[in-house]
Amino acid sequence: MLRRMSPRAYLAGPDVFLPRPEAFAAKKKALCSRYGFEGVFPLDAVLNLEGLSPHDAAIAISRANEQLIRSCQLVVAHVTPFRGPSADVGTAYEMGFARALGLRVFAYSNEANDFAARCDLLFETKRRPDGSLEDAWQMSVESFGLADNLMLIGAVEDSGGALVQHASSEAARFLDLTGFEQCLRAAAKVFSL
Amino acid sequence: MLRRMSPRAYLAGPDVFLPRPEAFAAKKKALCSRYGFEGVFPLDAVLNLEGLSPHDAAIAISRANEQLIRSCQLVVAHVTPFRGPSADVGTAYEMGFARALGLRVFAYSNEANDFAARCDLLFETKRRPDGSLEDAWQMSVESFGLADNLMLIGAVEDSGGALVQHASSEAARFLDLTGFEQCLRAAAKVFSL
Repeated sequence: MLRRMSPRAYLAGPDVFLPRPEAFAAKKKALCSRYGFEGVFPLDAVLNLEGLSPHDAAIAISRANEQLIRSCQLVVAHVTPFRGPSADVGTAYEMGFARALGLRVFAYSNEANDFAARCDLLFETKRRPDGSLEDAWQMSVESFGLADNLMLIGAVEDSGGALVQHASSEAARFLDLTGFEQCLRAAAKVFSL
Repeated sequence: MLRRMSPRAYLAGPDVFLPRPEAFAAKKKALCSRYGFEGVFPLDAVLNLEGLSPHDAAIAISRANEQLIRSCQLVVAHVTPFRGPSADVGTAYEMGFARALGLRVFAYSNEANDFAARCDLLFETKRRPDGSLEDAWQMSVESFGLADNLMLIGAVEDSGGALVQHASSEAARFLDLTGFEQCLRAAAKVFSL
């Protein structure tokens, strides 16, 4: 009997910046297995960076990550706001990369409030005469009631993925895997696992 | 004699959030023409959003932007740090989308200092015992001497594009087009215009 290959899920997110990313990756991969996926973490590529300049090492890592995404069927992106009101830009880049390749894009955020509400907390947003919102630099604040920039949310919806927002405790902001697991559950349905 | 079509350049960036984005788009497009390109601005799609919910309007805009990128041969991305130490996430998403489609990616930033230096100004970065940097959330700060997250810089370099960093005045932070024009000059060489 043929054994079906598990769909490969690229685990995009700022998790790579955790103090011990490998331990966190192992947790995520174990959850992936439980739902029938093979988790692929950005640090999985075996790279020999020895002797490379910091610049060349960075480019080698970027290239390896793109190759890993190309080997996957879906992305589960961790989009908890990172160092500002939006997701990590590396994660956003990878969502766009995956979407253009036709992968399904799932995403989870450990904050439950929407983008405009977050901007209001972080910056002094002001209501313009036409009703739109602007930030302290007079730049418009998207107010569509979405979790983040519309390109990110569009990728999730148009690819047939799912977005999960779940308010974690502040201490578990980058560690809580409730939303991640809900993404996997949704993805398992989509992939008929 | 056949007239060659001008390569189409998608003008990604937070410019869409300016108070008068159309006027700024016109300026950018005029510069594009001067260098032999047809500038394509995210707001160029003719969309009828009437009667749509804010959510559905947002998704329609995201879809239209992706279609516009598919119609282009290059992207010139405005990556001046936006509401944090990194580029706008919508722009990052579009760079990834374009890169996966094989477009050339050019980018300009109106800040000249590198990512780690910016994080140090914005957050209290700390040196770890192993020499790496971490931010106030104990998350690693990329220290490769790059302008931003390595995925964004990798896209530019691996696609054969160019990155221009040019320190603008604070008032012209989102308006200065010096770096944009330098990108167009570099792109004109690449496209043999």
